[in-house]
Amino acid sequence: MPFIQSEKLFSKLAEQSKASAIREILKIIQSSDVVSLAGGMPDPITFPVEDLRVICADILSSNSARALQYSSTEGLLQLREYLLKWLGLDKKGYKTENIMISSGSQQGLDLVSKALVDPGDIVIAELPSYLAALNAFKSYGAEVVGIPMDENGMQMDSLESTLQEITNKEKKIKFIYTISNFQNPAGVTMSLPRRKEILEIASKYNLFILEDNPYDKLRFEGEPLPPIQSFDQEGRVINLGTFSKILCPGLRLAWISGNKEIIEKVVILKQATDLCTPILNQMIGYEYCAKDYIDKNIDSNISVYREKRDVMLESLEKHFPEGAVWNKPAGGFFVFVTLPENIDADEMLYEAIEEKVAYVSGSSFFANGKGKNTMRLSFCYPSIEDIKEGVKRLGKVIEKNLKK
Amino acid sequence: MPFIQSEKLFSKLAEQSKASAIREILKIIQSSDVVSLAGGMPDPITFPVEDLRVICADILSSNSARALQYSSTEGLLQLREYLLKWLGLDKKGYKTENIMISSGSQQGLDLVSKALVDPGDIVIAELPSYLAALNAFKSYGAEVVGIPMDENGMQMDSLESTLQEITNKEKKIKFIYTISNFQNPAGVTMSLPRRKEILEIASKYNLFILEDNPYDKLRFEGEPLPPIQSFDQEGRVINLGTFSKILCPGLRLAWISGNKEIIEKVVILKQATDLCTPILNQMIGYEYCAKDYIDKNIDSNISVYREKRDVMLESLEKHFPEGAVWNKPAGGFFVFVTLPENIDADEMLYEAIEEKVAYVSGSSFFANGKGKNTMRLSFCYPSIEDIKEGVKRLGKVIEKNLKK
Repeated sequence: MPFIQSEKLFSKLAEQSKASAIREILKIIQSSDVVSLAGGMPDPITFPVEDLRVICADILSSNSARALQYSSTEGLLQLREYLLKWLGLDKKGYKTENIMISSGSQQGLDLVSKALVDPGDIVIAELPSYLAALNAFKSYGAEVVGIPMDENGMQMDSLESTLQEITNKEKKIKFIYTISNFQNPAGVTMSLPRRKEILEIASKYNLFILEDNPYDKLRFEGEPLPPIQSFDQEGRVINLGTFSKILCPGLRLAWISGNKEIIEKVVILKQATDLCTPILNQMIGYEYCAKDYIDKNIDSNISVYREKRDVMLESLEKHFPEGAVWNKPAGGFFVFVTLPENIDADEMLYEAIEEKVAYVSGSSFFANGKGKNTMRLSFCYPSIEDIKEGVKRLGKVIEKNLKK
Repeated sequence: MPFIQSEKLFSKLAEQSKASAIREILKIIQSSDVVSLAGGMPDPITFPVEDLRVICADILSSNSARALQYSSTEGLLQLREYLLKWLGLDKKGYKTENIMISSGSQQGLDLVSKALVDPGDIVIAELPSYLAALNAFKSYGAEVVGIPMDENGMQMDSLESTLQEITNKEKKIKFIYTISNFQNPAGVTMSLPRRKEILEIASKYNLFILEDNPYDKLRFEGEPLPPIQSFDQEGRVINLGTFSKILCPGLRLAWISGNKEIIEKVVILKQATDLCTPILNQMIGYEYCAKDYIDKNIDSNISVYREKRDVMLESLEKHFPEGAVWNKPAGGFFVFVTLPENIDADEMLYEAIEEKVAYVSGSSFFANGKGKNTMRLSFCYPSIEDIKEGVKRLGKVIEKNLKK
């Protein structure tokens, strides 16, 4: 008998799962002198290291038998109680049964997909949208249909006509996925009227809304907008929040809130998936919050990222050629650039890496395969100097390609 | 529009996923004076708290930018290199591409299921077998077929005839799941000849073997047996190992090893599932190993659990009525008891809890719905005194039920 041919035993869905472009890019540039405007990692300067070190030592001194043991699938009760209050979900009547701790928001995306998606079902997402979310949906056989955005987020007329069209084809639609604040990759925030409108539409077509909110606390200016969830009277919104961008991603701490039945189902599925999120990590997160450190840390994070965004926008003005356009995000991690139509940002990436600068080409975020002339630039991780230098290098590469 | 009816939007597979019996039991007894012989948690006395506290503080002092950041999906390179050597997998020619760090072994069970199982596929497991593994397989639509065991593990003649029978029906079989050492719940270890035989059979029918090995280092007496994986020349064995029983479960650190193609696929699936296992936790695990602490900790764990097993066996001799039989496990966490046929251990559990003792009734471990007159008793977590008292109480409950 020869060596096993693994691929002949793969499940149909696993067979279709491929490594992501972002991942492959990040691998290339990790070991080189390339300035990366690609990855969405937070700046480590925002990690409150000393506070976390003290908290962690305290927990292991006073409560180790608990901190190192198995724990409940739902997550640490005190942390869930804290989050309900902090997010104002208690005012909505939400209780601990309405919130679960997940191992990062990615696990929320995975478990919601597992709970709702049968192969062939439709999931609606913004065009473009977060690649790893689309991959989670597809890993359960979802077909993702994209809805275009403008400066106020997902276009509601397009959403409604698309839903109508799909319903006529008798395909099953399960949920609308939206990153309502400082969207990844487009940097756009959904306007207040549309937040109400999307709920009405979801109600009309009897769909869940999966509201992914990793950046909502990182607003640099202007009034915060209430999450879509805050207007929800029908239990239609499943909201994902995370500590990854406001504390640190390394603890893998996030949460998912929604109606009791969906949270109960997600808990059962999580149990078969990883039993529980590390309780030590949850206790660290809780103690950090209980000491009232989190809001101060968010304030200081905002200062860090606001300055970086400003530097990136200035650099773009200075170095990017005419014909390139981009948004001015009021928060979050990303600027989205649209280049003249004749430029293929997928192709150009190899050239950019040769010139020691990296970005994520936009096409991988488009469920419809378009967006060839777009790119996502991250200002979160690189230093101020690297942002300046990276944008300068990239401007030159684009100039060259314009002349081709 | 009324409140959303979530269950009408659940996927077909999610609809079938129910809360586990063990879980519900653990919930009941957490807040009471019941002696629990139910849960499979390690004794916290075995957690090397002081070492972990120092290591954790060191990492957060010297390497926080890395420890609190996102990390690679495959897991910490140094930890994977350490494990390859420690497990002797390097001698097999296995490299870092053959091993991935998972968020607990449960995630290994989940991802292997996702990689291999299409709804309706067959998975072969021991009868009885680990409930949360069966749940992971079923969560992807697998039909689990059980193979009886004797004191040498899974019965090979029964395995072969079952495979033949299923193959004739043209159903697709994907893998054989076995806990080869100190099996959960039966406490049985697969003999050396059968370890070779199961590989031959897997080769004949072109199947993977999923070898789950959480307890293999916890051998109280006798010579360790090489894992099935060590005889594998065809890349057929996927092996799951974990730090949960030899260090602590709270870090959620485990590993999965196998041929390059299956590990590559599992990494891609993990990326869509939770991006990465907390790197802080991985660095703690690695430093603990790199300081050569792990083998010493295993030795001291063995002393703790050997004594507890002895106390449980003595107590069973003393307090359990004639007609009850049990095995004498040479390692691991569990003793499996078979009661006279007329006793229904599911029913009797309520009575036992009233008498302030809990166990897991065996039926939930049987893929074929049998085993009503069996129970799993755990000696891992309760104190010596609690083991004595628990077995005594349980003996009385059984006596009463015999007379019914």
